[in-house]
Amino acid sequence: MTVIRPAGVALLMTGDELMRGDTVDSNSAHIAQALTERGVVVREKTTVGDDRDLLLETIARLAKDHDVLIINGGLGPTSDDLTSEVVAQLANTPLKEHPDARSHVEAWCQRLGVTPNESNLKQAKVPFGATLIDNPTGSAMGFSTDIYRCRVITTPGVPRELKAMMASVLALTSERITTQNAHTRRLQTFGIGESTIQQLLNDSELPWPPSVNLGFRAGMPQLELKLTVNNEDDLPQQQHCFEQLNALFGDHILGEGDTTLASALQQTLRAQGKTVTAAESCTGGLIASMITREPGSSAIFNAGYVTYANASKRDTLGVSQEDLDKHGAVSEPVVRQMLAGALERSGADIGIAVSGIAGPSGGTDEKPVGTVWLAWGSKDAMQSHCVVIPGSRDLFQNLVAAAGLDLMRRQLLALPAQPHYFTRKTQ
Amino acid sequence: MTVIRPAGVALLMTGDELMRGDTVDSNSAHIAQALTERGVVVREKTTVGDDRDLLLETIARLAKDHDVLIINGGLGPTSDDLTSEVVAQLANTPLKEHPDARSHVEAWCQRLGVTPNESNLKQAKVPFGATLIDNPTGSAMGFSTDIYRCRVITTPGVPRELKAMMASVLALTSERITTQNAHTRRLQTFGIGESTIQQLLNDSELPWPPSVNLGFRAGMPQLELKLTVNNEDDLPQQQHCFEQLNALFGDHILGEGDTTLASALQQTLRAQGKTVTAAESCTGGLIASMITREPGSSAIFNAGYVTYANASKRDTLGVSQEDLDKHGAVSEPVVRQMLAGALERSGADIGIAVSGIAGPSGGTDEKPVGTVWLAWGSKDAMQSHCVVIPGSRDLFQNLVAAAGLDLMRRQLLALPAQPHYFTRKTQ
Repeated sequence: MTVIRPAGVALLMTGDELMRGDTVDSNSAHIAQALTERGVVVREKTTVGDDRDLLLETIARLAKDHDVLIINGGLGPTSDDLTSEVVAQLANTPLKEHPDARSHVEAWCQRLGVTPNESNLKQAKVPFGATLIDNPTGSAMGFSTDIYRCRVITTPGVPRELKAMMASVLALTSERITTQNAHTRRLQTFGIGESTIQQLLNDSELPWPPSVNLGFRAGMPQLELKLTVNNEDDLPQQQHCFEQLNALFGDHILGEGDTTLASALQQTLRAQGKTVTAAESCTGGLIASMITREPGSSAIFNAGYVTYANASKRDTLGVSQEDLDKHGAVSEPVVRQMLAGALERSGADIGIAVSGIAGPSGGTDEKPVGTVWLAWGSKDAMQSHCVVIPGSRDLFQNLVAAAGLDLMRRQLLALPAQPHYFTRKTQ
Repeated sequence: MTVIRPAGVALLMTGDELMRGDTVDSNSAHIAQALTERGVVVREKTTVGDDRDLLLETIARLAKDHDVLIINGGLGPTSDDLTSEVVAQLANTPLKEHPDARSHVEAWCQRLGVTPNESNLKQAKVPFGATLIDNPTGSAMGFSTDIYRCRVITTPGVPRELKAMMASVLALTSERITTQNAHTRRLQTFGIGESTIQQLLNDSELPWPPSVNLGFRAGMPQLELKLTVNNEDDLPQQQHCFEQLNALFGDHILGEGDTTLASALQQTLRAQGKTVTAAESCTGGLIASMITREPGSSAIFNAGYVTYANASKRDTLGVSQEDLDKHGAVSEPVVRQMLAGALERSGADIGIAVSGIAGPSGGTDEKPVGTVWLAWGSKDAMQSHCVVIPGSRDLFQNLVAAAGLDLMRRQLLALPAQPHYFTRKTQ
């Protein structure tokens, strides 16, 4: 008879602060990411507070169903910290002071110039027979022991300490679970949504090899695509899929890895030996800020202009008062003059100008909140367009700034001037 | 015989991206915090991927053990999004298109100028008989239905959409669980850390009433303090504690609720009928962007100058070329001239100028990466100071921008000119 049992890795995060929402848990993402890079996807993650009965019940359940259970938190010195005690109970073994853990605590206290007290020494107690895991940056050592046939690995909740212990955690995990190095290519895209990408792939009716996993990660404002294969032999398939995506919507792909709109723009500008400027009304400095957030931006950016008031559009960028009066600040002539003024003042080769109604007030029937005029390009090749982006002020500013960077990238690379996001409601 | 059954609220977070660690889950903290403020602490939180069997098993288990189960994620348009389908199956009811949900999807698509496709319309299907939850900022409506005797509430995974739906989620929760209004006062502070606050409180030796809970929530760059009492009778105690905090470090308190550095500054400027400007080098537009992120900023902000290159400091703001050559861009004479130029050009009453080395390159022995000169104030009351903020480019830019806003607030309110964060390494 073959017994089929559930397998894989579970995570248990503990701490009252997580249940109250006082702390955003980044530790579990860190553990999950490290495992995923080795081809292991966490099956279940559960979070409970510092409650003995609930910890007993939850650890028993997770240990029954998994090969490996990684517990984070509850190894501290206070009476709330119950992990060692509960694991010992479930492992049917006494909680005992471990001589190496005691030396570790004593050495730690000595570094801090304090005498170990009872609370500190509590951290030296682990389930009898457990394997210790060194903690180079904190007083609480982790440990590993078995409950049922599950390997239970405990780690401290301080992010820095957890990170320093991850290599040991992965080594202990790989003794029970087959791990491998997954091969992932991450592509950064802008201006195209997950559902449109799925639709384009379906419509293309191109065969998609089952060995290549396509994942999405929604950022703001970018969308990341991940092409993952678990086997080196499948790398040509991965390359094939990459080319397929590139053929379908290559102009929306900014680059690989951690490429941002601003870093893609910077790279293109550097390659062409050009500089950029921005004349901003409704984005209020956000475009310049995105450009200069990237290291090395001084090579491609000299000056930006936040011309929020009409007088400043006129005085700083030379926009005609007559056009401001006649067409309003949110108009094609005004953004084109803003761009011309910024290009001239800064001496930049290419630029972006935006003027719009970020809201929540200031909208009219003719120009509702979310209306924005953009002008971009060089002195001799200026383009302009109006879009309406409904939603919050924050979303509006972020999308307008992102589109501004993208439109310059498109012009520099001679990509289609009408990106996907211009097929939305435009004027 | 009395059947004792477990009770309370459970959360279920879904999505492969959470299991792979691609996304740090902030939604569950948001939900937990909102519940905690109403006296309800989440009992268990479980996270699983987009896996039908595991979702069935997990939702069944959590529904059996709790009065309310809040599910987040899996309401999107793609085939990975399984929440509605799985909940319908467990609720023993068919998945049907809801006319109101269909109208919602259609209206949403119309606003975006697209025709609803099959993927979009999938979002109109909910378990038959479920109560819809309006989603004012997205296409996916949530819904509420019963599984066993548990109220199951579903919400979308996009943080902005979840936030806009929380009031409805809380109302639906309170129909099954006794909630109370804990009385919380949230204070926003800048420039002082949690451990310093604790230390100041300890040193003050003032009695702290046990009925008032003091909580901290680290934001970037602000720190939020929460004073919570569970009983209306304790409101005077809460007020007493508030006054105590105010006496100890009131100049670091920006305001209550969601006050930001920029909104506190805007409020002060409005009250005094003044306007502000910024001349930015190393922050590259971030200060102007923070000011204009706040609604209503046009009342207090007319223009900002991103003078990244030396030539632009000279041409736009009138900084002397001689001083640039002699002292370098990161120097006291240069930031003071930048400020003077920005005040004159914009006509603003008060302003901030910053010039520093954001890194990662560009540092010298004399001026290491992280060195920044700030000048702030009005034409007749100009102050300047140099600080060194080591760390990443991102952290540097954010802290310099935040300090810039705070220094202007301090001058306007005639608060101590040397805030706590200047006691760090300064020049």
